[in-house]
Amino acid sequence: MILTNSTGLAGVVAGETAISTVGKQGVGLTYRGYTIEDLAEHSTFEEVACLLIHGELPTPAERDQFLAKRIAQQRLSDEMMSFLEQLPDTSHPMDVLRSGTSLLGCWEPEHSIDQQQRIAARLLAVFPSMICYWYRFVNDRFRIEIESEQTTVAGHFLQLLHSGAPSEVDRRALDVALILYAEHEFNASTFAARVTASTGSDLYSAICTGIGTLRGPLHGGANEASMKLISNFTDPEQAEQGVLRKLARREKIMGFGHRVYKSTDPRSEIMKRWALTLCKQTRQLKTYAVAERIETVMQREKGLFPNLDFYSAVAFHCLGIPTALFTPLFVMARTAGWSAHVFEQRSNNRLIRPTANYIGPSQRPLVRPHQRT
Amino acid sequence: MILTNSTGLAGVVAGETAISTVGKQGVGLTYRGYTIEDLAEHSTFEEVACLLIHGELPTPAERDQFLAKRIAQQRLSDEMMSFLEQLPDTSHPMDVLRSGTSLLGCWEPEHSIDQQQRIAARLLAVFPSMICYWYRFVNDRFRIEIESEQTTVAGHFLQLLHSGAPSEVDRRALDVALILYAEHEFNASTFAARVTASTGSDLYSAICTGIGTLRGPLHGGANEASMKLISNFTDPEQAEQGVLRKLARREKIMGFGHRVYKSTDPRSEIMKRWALTLCKQTRQLKTYAVAERIETVMQREKGLFPNLDFYSAVAFHCLGIPTALFTPLFVMARTAGWSAHVFEQRSNNRLIRPTANYIGPSQRPLVRPHQRT
Ligand SMILES: CC(C)(COP(=O)(O)OP(=O)(O)OC[C@H]1O[C@@H](n2cnc3c(N)ncnc32)[C@H](O)[C@@H]1OP(=O)(O)O)[C@@H](O)C(=O)NCCC(=O)NCCS
Ligand SMILES: CC(C)(COP(=O)(O)OP(=O)(O)OC[C@H]1O[C@@H](n2cnc3c(N)ncnc32)[C@H](O)[C@@H]1OP(=O)(O)O)[C@@H](O)C(=O)NCCC(=O)NCCS
Repeated sequence: MILTNSTGLAGVVAGETAISTVGKQGVGLTYRGYTIEDLAEHSTFEEVACLLIHGELPTPAERDQFLAKRIAQQRLSDEMMSFLEQLPDTSHPMDVLRSGTSLLGCWEPEHSIDQQQRIAARLLAVFPSMICYWYRFVNDRFRIEIESEQTTVAGHFLQLLHSGAPSEVDRRALDVALILYAEHEFNASTFAARVTASTGSDLYSAICTGIGTLRGPLHGGANEASMKLISNFTDPEQAEQGVLRKLARREKIMGFGHRVYKSTDPRSEIMKRWALTLCKQTRQLKTYAVAERIETVMQREKGLFPNLDFYSAVAFHCLGIPTALFTPLFVMARTAGWSAHVFEQRSNNRLIRPTANYIGPSQRPLVRPHQRT
Repeated sequence: MILTNSTGLAGVVAGETAISTVGKQGVGLTYRGYTIEDLAEHSTFEEVACLLIHGELPTPAERDQFLAKRIAQQRLSDEMMSFLEQLPDTSHPMDVLRSGTSLLGCWEPEHSIDQQQRIAARLLAVFPSMICYWYRFVNDRFRIEIESEQTTVAGHFLQLLHSGAPSEVDRRALDVALILYAEHEFNASTFAARVTASTGSDLYSAICTGIGTLRGPLHGGANEASMKLISNFTDPEQAEQGVLRKLARREKIMGFGHRVYKSTDPRSEIMKRWALTLCKQTRQLKTYAVAERIETVMQREKGLFPNLDFYSAVAFHCLGIPTALFTPLFVMARTAGWSAHVFEQRSNNRLIRPTANYIGPSQRPLVRPHQRT
């Protein structure tokens, strides 16, 4: 028995991966050897999805093929639309995506491992359609058209959400966010998806696990929680006092801290620049100032830095995206990473089954019902 | 960084639990201090579910209250029935349960942690109704009545499946199987459910994770695979030759071996006795003889023993349960253990987020699309 002497498997190596490195020596993020800075500057989400899923960046021909397939696969079946319309208006958007994925597993099952690439591509393509169709139906009682002239996930999502083509700056801002969210080694949702895959289960089950795990506020849910925090405050001074009060009550400030990064989250720096651009463009510099002040207070008081979720929240807000859809956007991106990890797990599988340290009652005789108190 | 030097987290202590012990010194299973032998002999599945979820065995009054609540909560809403009817006939029954659970999370969401006990009880009560309603609708085009005079999960399931009250022997045989399946420490599905819970996600998400993870053939799916194997053979001699051929091809024989138990699975011995009783009763002693021969061959050739899934398959078969519903039965039982583990994780939570050993390409410059080959 290997005692790890660590809670939450912190620092425990649970397996091997060739997909990404997170915070080697506490800093930096690479996807298959490429730095996140290079990818965010010079690549696109669709290229990154190819990189993660197929192992290499696509040639221009491969990329065009991937985009064409994406468009072909973004459709919603009639059953899916009718199912989405029947969901209660009060559904949590992550529950909508988890249920939609689970149902797709009934309608378009994975019969064999040869289908895994196709299914991953289908999920990447269909999630923006699924969430926007449901959201617009529930909020505007409007059945949107799923077709759009947009070739990218970011463009498609913004067009469906707003019923109009996004500006190139907006589209690219979201595209970069998707790149940054696409993959992050053995984070909780990815690791859980690998455990699911390790029993020989299907890809839909693994993605449902990913969505359900991402949903929590300590993980993907943090971007929504960050926005709720920021929108509490109308100016930096008020934000400072509010955060100090929370810290005094020992509350956690969502969007700060990280299990692996120790001094900074390299994704946050990139996202912060985009948040500034978008805040300027939409004249929401006050929101930006509030966010920056929270960052300053957290650094000063706790030595904690913002993670990706914090400035993403600001950026998504400026893009006119409702807060309830922030974590679903994380799903749209991370599906690339989850899929890549499931494929990797399958290619060299062993059941993931740890053990536990027992702290319960010692062995005891069974007492018959009438003698129990 | 803690290098575990172990694949699949084998032997790695991933946390603490007060719920059960599996194979301390390679043998034995206890639930909250009670041995599995005592529980299988003197207790009922409903009592065991109480024990797991509440920490202690119920008094007679508590047990009666639990049974009454179970009956009240086994109903299917009209939406649920209509949803089940719309599923394709070809759906995998585990996908039906995963989807039904996910949807219940939309219809009856967990708004706060105070609701966790109620939701666990609801899921335990509703799963037999859900799977039988769907199964009978798909196979017999028949809308079954969900009400039955049965107070137990085992009785309710058998009554809905066969449209008639089960004999007491049959009911008790299934009851014991549910006791044996109810809980098993940090097995893959339970561990995955704990990872989901560790992000602060809801109970439905954690149970969806459990179902999706159990679905694989290396885990819950093994009982169905065992049955398929056994039914290939009409007599022991043929079984011996068939298994030898499979072993020569280095195929795994489902229903044998275990990550933690090293010499025997204590649950299997109990289930084997029930399998014999049921085989005698239904005059299927040839099936029993085939199973026993496979056991002998596996012991002789590989030193491997049957796990719970192997003789459960024989018993379920004698109970007239279709093979496709074997793993769903596992879900009905393990929901008790999954829930108990989610509650335990929540009561002393830290995000479960391990790390990985990187074996991918070293850092490399980004090549522009037209230069890629
Ligand atoms: C990400 C996170 C879960 C990492 O968890 P972890 O490695 O288990 O770290 P811990 O929760 O044990 O935190 C270590 C210490 O820092 C404090 N801390 C960590 N994050 C904090 C935050 N966001 N706000 C306030 N304090 C925080 C903890 O309270 C703890 O202090 P203590 O030692 O005095 O108890 C954690 O930082 C967190 O909850 N952050 C907020 C949620 C979030 O943004 N998640 C998205 C991650 S990308
Ligand atoms: C349960 C199980 C996943 C445990 O896995 P594990 O601890 O990772 O063990 P491994 O798969 O590494 O097996 C160790 C060795 O025993 C062999 N082995 C284990 N179970 C076997 C089986 N059911 N049939 C044939 N060989 C088996 C393996 O091939 C391996 O041999 P090797 O060292 O020559 O390669 C594994 O025993 C198994 O796959 N069993 C069949 C599925 C099953 O019944 N699952 C239900 C469990 S309750």
